[in-house]
This record gives sequence, structure tokens and C-alpha cells, in this order.
Amino acid sequence: MDSGHIALLTLDLLGTLAFAVNGAMTALKFARVDIVGVLTLGMVTALGGGFIRDILIDSLPPTTFMDWRYLFIAALGSLIAFFLGPRLEKLAPTITLFDAVGLSLFAVTGTLKGLTFGLGPIQSIILGVITAAGGGTIRDIMIQRIPAVLHTELYAIPAALGASLTAVIVASSLPSVPWVVFAALMCFTLRMVGVHFDLHAPKPPHHSKDT
Amino acid sequence: MDSGHIALLTLDLLGTLAFAVNGAMTALKFARVDIVGVLTLGMVTALGGGFIRDILIDSLPPTTFMDWRYLFIAALGSLIAFFLGPRLEKLAPTITLFDAVGLSLFAVTGTLKGLTFGLGPIQSIILGVITAAGGGTIRDIMIQRIPAVLHTELYAIPAALGASLTAVIVASSLPSVPWVVFAALMCFTLRMVGVHFDLHAPKPPHHSKDT
Amino acid sequence: MDSGHIALLTLDLLGTLAFAVNGAMTALKFARVDIVGVLTLGMVTALGGGFIRDILIDSLPPTTFMDWRYLFIAALGSLIAFFLGPRLEKLAPTITLFDAVGLSLFAVTGTLKGLTFGLGPIQSIILGVITAAGGGTIRDIMIQRIPAVLHTELYAIPAALGASLTAVIVASSLPSVPWVVFAALMCFTLRMVGVHFDLHAPKPPHHSKDT
Repeated sequence: MDSGHIALLTLDLLGTLAFAVNGAMTALKFARVDIVGVLTLGMVTALGGGFIRDILIDSLPPTTFMDWRYLFIAALGSLIAFFLGPRLEKLAPTITLFDAVGLSLFAVTGTLKGLTFGLGPIQSIILGVITAAGGGTIRDIMIQRIPAVLHTELYAIPAALGASLTAVIVASSLPSVPWVVFAALMCFTLRMVGVHFDLHAPKPPHHSKDT
Repeated sequence: MDSGHIALLTLDLLGTLAFAVNGAMTALKFARVDIVGVLTLGMVTALGGGFIRDILIDSLPPTTFMDWRYLFIAALGSLIAFFLGPRLEKLAPTITLFDAVGLSLFAVTGTLKGLTFGLGPIQSIILGVITAAGGGTIRDIMIQRIPAVLHTELYAIPAALGASLTAVIVASSLPSVPWVVFAALMCFTLRMVGVHFDLHAPKPPHHSKDT
Repeated sequence: MDSGHIALLTLDLLGTLAFAVNGAMTALKFARVDIVGVLTLGMVTALGGGFIRDILIDSLPPTTFMDWRYLFIAALGSLIAFFLGPRLEKLAPTITLFDAVGLSLFAVTGTLKGLTFGLGPIQSIILGVITAAGGGTIRDIMIQRIPAVLHTELYAIPAALGASLTAVIVASSLPSVPWVVFAALMCFTLRMVGVHFDLHAPKPPHHSKDT
């Protein structure tokens, strides 16, 4: 394994860790769950999006389910949240940062996996977004919240940006590695800009509930 | 592609459009979602049932996921609902009508696909019902409603009727095309009769919550 | 089919029946559902865990979906709950007992199936727990409850115990049949001890909601 692969694996595991910690903390914040719940919800947040992607492209069993490192890191992140709990709140900005790293990586790698499996660009972009946002969506459904991605913040849109850029890069003759990093950085930047300026996706124009 | 196939494809896309519009309107009515939410929920309503069917029969990636026309129509229907919103309310009867067309077609084609994949009649009927009612079920779960199909109106029962007739027709030596159309019409008719007379599936006989 | 297989099949169908009755009764207790809802929720409770397992290990279509006996027993259990409803309450201890039988069998057989498909012990243990607890989790999500397994009682932990013992037994050179029965009995015992003494999985140590 060369240094590029090691770097990518390290980032991917860091993203998985951040997703698990963030997912478990969200579960602890919004629901009265026990250790089984925190572990389940953290792991679902970290791994769920990739599972849906792998089901849709018929790449079963899911890659991250078969790789014990992902299971271990996802369980570790969940248990950290379980035992430290509210004390992690002061780390919230750091966790949001790593969550954005995870979002960017999952959006890009999800899209690349779709393209590798021979899917069209539209399908691959959808897969990238599902990989990035699917786990948190299942977690929110399990703790009886309307999934955050459906109504607040900029989350799916940065993922869609990163995924679309990835599809364009692969379709063009651009040298792939640096440009794919660029796609991930664009996703990351838009996500963090959204967090910083509290940006939200457009609401329906004529919706009575908005008034 | 002969005229029969074009007619079927057209009806299927119309059903998909109606499911997407209806699904997105339901989402707008019951939850405060943004454009990502409306698009997601409309597409889930239109395509989700077929996705579950294709997972269960191991026909992955799902057919309608690979066909950009279905993705396009489902996204289009969702965006129409997003931009027109409450102004579509006056079209509600038309949308209910097309939704019933979608229900009928999805029930019949879902059953036929099950039979084509070698499944037994019971399994194929279940698949027909899942194809027809699965998408709306996932949408309702995502917006924190108990799925309508589980407690109100006649929705799964017309689908089960259409699916059962389809299984009987295929098992018998009846000429298939006109009789399959008959099965879809029976589903459609029962659904619209249910809407018109406000019929509901039986409630539990001794349930204390009913009193 | 020898007597061992018949005994296992009988127990498995009894477990399925108990899961369906229990699942349908839970649905009736917490949601105002009609016959479609009760049937759907009972069947989802009884069969859902095995479906997720079979999706994850790429054993599609799911085994219990293709075997009409499981569909029949699951539908039967749901309809018993629908028609007898509250009158079954006096049978609650019996149903809890059979539910624990189902839990134990599903945890063990789910783990064995994972191992048979070549998955590692960790993955197989997770599959055993999902087989045992997955159906009830989906049912709870569908009726708008936070899944019981995430916050109350001992349910996943006995399943994890039975699954772990099963994985250890298969990895060792122990004679498998009696020891696998032992694993199931350990799961069953811990579950019933938990019910009897009202034991719960640990809550987060510093959680403000607990105070």
C-alpha cells in the first residue's frame, strides 16, 4: 500500500470516526438511549450511507461491513460519545470539522464507486450524496426526528457539489487525483461556509408554514 | 419498441410523475422541508417501492434507478410540487386519479416482475403490493407520520386485488395482455370507489382505542 | 428430513409465530392501525430481521420470503392478534416466553448463516443480533416509536451473548449441536432473567436527561 492509499484510508477512517462520534452525540442529545442504542446509532450514522450505496450497486456484502477496521472505528467513536457524552460538547467545532471531512470523502468516494461499477454520472452523483448523507438520515429516522438533511442547513448540497465535480472530472481528461481532491475540498468548503454563515437550502416559495 | 410498449411506458411514467407530485405535496403538507427534502421525498415516493421489490428479488441495481427517464420524471414531479406548492391543491383530484393509475400499474407490473423472476404467486403478490405502496410508506416514515397505508383508506387492498388477479391470470391460460389490463382496472376502480365513498380497511374488532 | 431438523424447524416456526403475535400486539397497543397495518407490522416484526441479514450477506431473495410456511405463520400470528387483540393480554407471559425462544433461535441461526457464508466472527455476531432484533426495530420505526431495543430492557445483549457463544463454538472444536443449543439457552436465560428482574442495559454515565 503506497502512501497515497494510506493517506486516503487514514482520512476515510477519520471521517468514519467523526460520523460515529457525531451520530452518537446526536442520538444522546435527542433521545434517551442506552449503550445498545448509542452503539447502534453511531454505527448506523457512520456506515449506513455506504450500506445503502452498496445495496443499490449490488456490491454485497457492503465493503465497510466486511472490513473490521471500519466496524472497530465506528464502534469506538460511538463508545467515546457514550462515556464522555456532554464533555464532548466543547469539541463540537472539531467534530463538525471532521464530519465535514467525512461528508466530502464519502461524497467523492461514493461517486467514484458508482462510476467504477459502470453506472451513469447521474446515478453516481446520487450514490455519492446517499453515501454522505444516508447514515445520518437513518439515525434521525430511528430517533424520531425528521432527518436534518431534509429541512435544515447545507448538507446534501455540498455533497452534491462534490459528487458532481467528481463525475465531471472522471468524464473529462483531467488528471484525476489532484482534481478529485479539489472536488472534495469544494464540498468541504461549501459545507463549512454553510456552517459558519448558518446557510440553509431554499424553502418552498409559497409554503403557508413558512409565514 | 411497438405501440403497446410505448403505451405502457407512457402510463408507467405518468404513474411515476403522479407518485412524485403526490409524495412531494404530502411532504410539503406535513413537514417543514426544504428543496432537498421535497426532492428526496418525492423521489422516494415514486421510486422507493420498486427499489424494495428489486432488492428482494435480487434484481440490482434497481431498474428505475438505472433508467434516467424515471429519475428525471420523479425529480420533475417533485420540483413541480416544490415551486407550485399549495396552488396544486386545486389539482388534487387529478393527482389522486393519476396516483391511482400509478398504484394499479405498479401493483400489476410488480407482480409480473416477481413471476418473471420465478417467484411463487404469494411472493409475487406481496411484491406487487410493495411496489405500489412501499414508496409512500418510506416517505411517511421519513416525515414522522405513521404510514397512511397502515391505518387509513383503501390503498393496499386495491393493490392486493390487482396483484392477485394478475397472478391468477398468469397461472391460467387466459390471453395475458387484455386480462392484465383488466386486473389493473379492477385495482384502479376499487381505489377510486374507496376514495369516492371514503372507505377504509377494517379496524381491529375489540380495540379499546376505537371506542 | 430427520428429527433434529424437524425439531429445529418447529422451534423456528414457533419463534416466528411468537414474533408475529408480539409484533402485531405491540402495533395494536401503540398505534391505531387497520387490518393492513396489523398484518404488515406483524410480518415485518417476524421476518424483517432475517431480510436485513440476507440483504447484507447477499443471500437474495431472503430465505423466509421464499418459504411459504414462514409467510403463512407470520400472517397467521398477525391475524390472531388482530382478531383476539386485548384478549391476548392474559397470554402476555406466554408470548414473551416464545418471543425469547424466537430471539434465541434467530440470534444463533443468524450467526450460523453468517459464518456459513464465509463472514468473520464479528460480522456474524452482528448479523445474529440483527436477525433477532431487526424486525422489531423496523416495526417500532413504522409506528413512530423509538425502537425499544435502543433504550430499554435487555434484548440486544442476550442476542449478542447467544451470537458470540455461537461464533466461539464454531471457531473451536466443540461438538456443535449440543453447544449451539447451549448458546441459545444462554441467550434465552439472560433474556428471561432480564424480564423477571426488570434489568436494563447501561445508560450513559453523564447524561443530563437521566438526572
